[in-house]
Amino acid sequence: MNFELSEFRQRLRAVQESMFLRGLEVLIVSDPSNMHYLTGYDGWSFYVHQGLVVALDDDMPLWWGRGMDANGAKLTTWLGADHIRPYADDYVQNPLKHPLSFVADLLRERGWDRRRVGAEHDNYWFTGKCLTTLDRELPGGGGIKDGTGLVNWVRIIKSPREIEYLRRAARVSAEVMRTALEAIKPGRLERAAAAKVYQACVMGTHDAPGDHPAIFPIMPSNQRTACAHLGWDPERTYAEGDLVLLELTGVHKRYHCPLSRTVFLGTPPPKLKNIADAVLAGVEKVLAFIRPGVTAEEVESEWRQVISRYGVVKPSRLGYSIGASYVPDWGERTISLRPGDKTVLRPGMTLHLMPGIWEDDLGFESSEPLLVTETGCEPFMNFPRGFLN
Amino acid sequence: MNFELSEFRQRLRAVQESMFLRGLEVLIVSDPSNMHYLTGYDGWSFYVHQGLVVALDDDMPLWWGRGMDANGAKLTTWLGADHIRPYADDYVQNPLKHPLSFVADLLRERGWDRRRVGAEHDNYWFTGKCLTTLDRELPGGGGIKDGTGLVNWVRIIKSPREIEYLRRAARVSAEVMRTALEAIKPGRLERAAAAKVYQACVMGTHDAPGDHPAIFPIMPSNQRTACAHLGWDPERTYAEGDLVLLELTGVHKRYHCPLSRTVFLGTPPPKLKNIADAVLAGVEKVLAFIRPGVTAEEVESEWRQVISRYGVVKPSRLGYSIGASYVPDWGERTISLRPGDKTVLRPGMTLHLMPGIWEDDLGFESSEPLLVTETGCEPFMNFPRGFLN
Repeated sequence: MNFELSEFRQRLRAVQESMFLRGLEVLIVSDPSNMHYLTGYDGWSFYVHQGLVVALDDDMPLWWGRGMDANGAKLTTWLGADHIRPYADDYVQNPLKHPLSFVADLLRERGWDRRRVGAEHDNYWFTGKCLTTLDRELPGGGGIKDGTGLVNWVRIIKSPREIEYLRRAARVSAEVMRTALEAIKPGRLERAAAAKVYQACVMGTHDAPGDHPAIFPIMPSNQRTACAHLGWDPERTYAEGDLVLLELTGVHKRYHCPLSRTVFLGTPPPKLKNIADAVLAGVEKVLAFIRPGVTAEEVESEWRQVISRYGVVKPSRLGYSIGASYVPDWGERTISLRPGDKTVLRPGMTLHLMPGIWEDDLGFESSEPLLVTETGCEPFMNFPRGFLN
Repeated sequence: MNFELSEFRQRLRAVQESMFLRGLEVLIVSDPSNMHYLTGYDGWSFYVHQGLVVALDDDMPLWWGRGMDANGAKLTTWLGADHIRPYADDYVQNPLKHPLSFVADLLRERGWDRRRVGAEHDNYWFTGKCLTTLDRELPGGGGIKDGTGLVNWVRIIKSPREIEYLRRAARVSAEVMRTALEAIKPGRLERAAAAKVYQACVMGTHDAPGDHPAIFPIMPSNQRTACAHLGWDPERTYAEGDLVLLELTGVHKRYHCPLSRTVFLGTPPPKLKNIADAVLAGVEKVLAFIRPGVTAEEVESEWRQVISRYGVVKPSRLGYSIGASYVPDWGERTISLRPGDKTVLRPGMTLHLMPGIWEDDLGFESSEPLLVTETGCEPFMNFPRGFLN
């Protein structure tokens, strides 16, 4: 286990408190990172329906999932055997049977079927069919309530152990970025660079083993840099004059510390240079501004004032909360640094300040993962900014 | 583009035909592999809501997604600029606004909002909130119908070009497996083996560039082999007497050709040897049995008769359809080789025959990806079976 039992118990109590305050007696948790947070569960089994049931009157979450994954639950969680409930294999991808019917059976067995039940309505792993199945199976509770983000918001303040894992992930991240920079040279294959990035991410360092990343290496070149989420070109070779964006990550015990940088193999054009100047000035301003008590939207406003002096516009959010995660996203899906987000920053929050600019013909990125401290903020890394290589 | 325009248009017509037969006039497609199949769209942007709208009376799908990903849609699809519809960034992970409201606006704009609209109710990327938002926004159409699997079933017969990509993926897959076998030696780190597997998967071969895999390298050792979906242990070193399961894949242009094998560093115990004998006999029997006209459940029945003679039981499905995919699953989520699946096999279907046995203390795997031919079946690979290393 990556955490003491006491930390898992504390997390569960915090989730139960939040459920109580939102009027939920039972919560079905589908998000694999939330499952991991509450139980330690770790496996690539989220491609079939699985989850937890958290109840106000049970001091242990109930794991439910496919039969062949029950051994994995026994091995990786703190749950007792009676709290691991596998379903038969013919529930998998079968139009005639749905795993959420099995979950409804579990709730009936526990006498929870007429309680106020919530689920993560807008989570990837809770489909429309999950919701309609539960609604049909549990007519007595007045409809399944929306608990999207409830556990994610409990995760927002990191414990000392979590911060330590993020610091180690940052060391992996720096190694991953150095590996990418060494591999991006004229005449080398783009896919060879991507392959080395994966290798560095999984290897980690001697004192911080890596892990599989929640997002693939985002490393587009040239025209593809105008696109926010494209990878390398598997057939292409780097050449003089190439622009390459790198949005990469280190991972340690599922904790992600992403980092973005921009490579130019030669002299960048003035338009791109201006964008870079704007971004780097904005990053400095924001790092000096962030402290407990300011809001997410105030952080973005500071940034916008700086880049507007350069004539640069960023219509997308400036950053988001990070922590433990699985595919498809290393973000926590809570705080967004953008207008309208009223979240007040507090010590122990961890953010990825991600000022990516994607124009129609090119892009520039230089990000900073950071920890909100008692008095300000502390970047997890001290990696050179500006154009690299 | 990886396919001719004519092939994309043919795919669209086949989907429209299936929609017509199921009484759907409009279909919202969320599955990234279905988006890729119909348009070529390729990017790691599925962590926010995105999709297609396919209508009976439009000969081009409509792409909708986050603003920053519209350039990626222009670059990777055959769609015209007027069929690429980005939404503003404040739709992202915002409890006050949902991207499916934007999609409802699109449908109203096109006059499709009172038509019979379907969506992929049980797809990962179509959440409960997606369904309730659409149902609320489009009250005139009598409720959003379930189109889960509609596009996936159209994909079930592979074109010659698709089969060629799968053959190339098979060459990558063999290289990935050889790489793993070389890396799994006493005294070596498990994570170093996993890192090399990723590297080999992304690199591919000189004539078949690889790509990122839809599932991470499933390579548990010893006690972890009892669990179907665990990875390597990031801290552990291989030792004499280790049992290691390998469920790996090669990828080429998003087409996956997965392969499973079992490593034993020493002499396997009799119990495991018996399981291996059962599995290998079962595989031979099934490969000789598969031909057009037999059903998925008949294939499984042949298998079950063989392994029962060894006293071995497999409660989970024996295999599934494969093709182009993205995380979290390289399966197509259509055919399952198991009792009750009445699908009749036809030439051009591609299956992963995946006879994994997971007992409470250990497991064994030896799989074969294969093509159903006019007269029988053809494994994509000819990789040694039995205990390796």
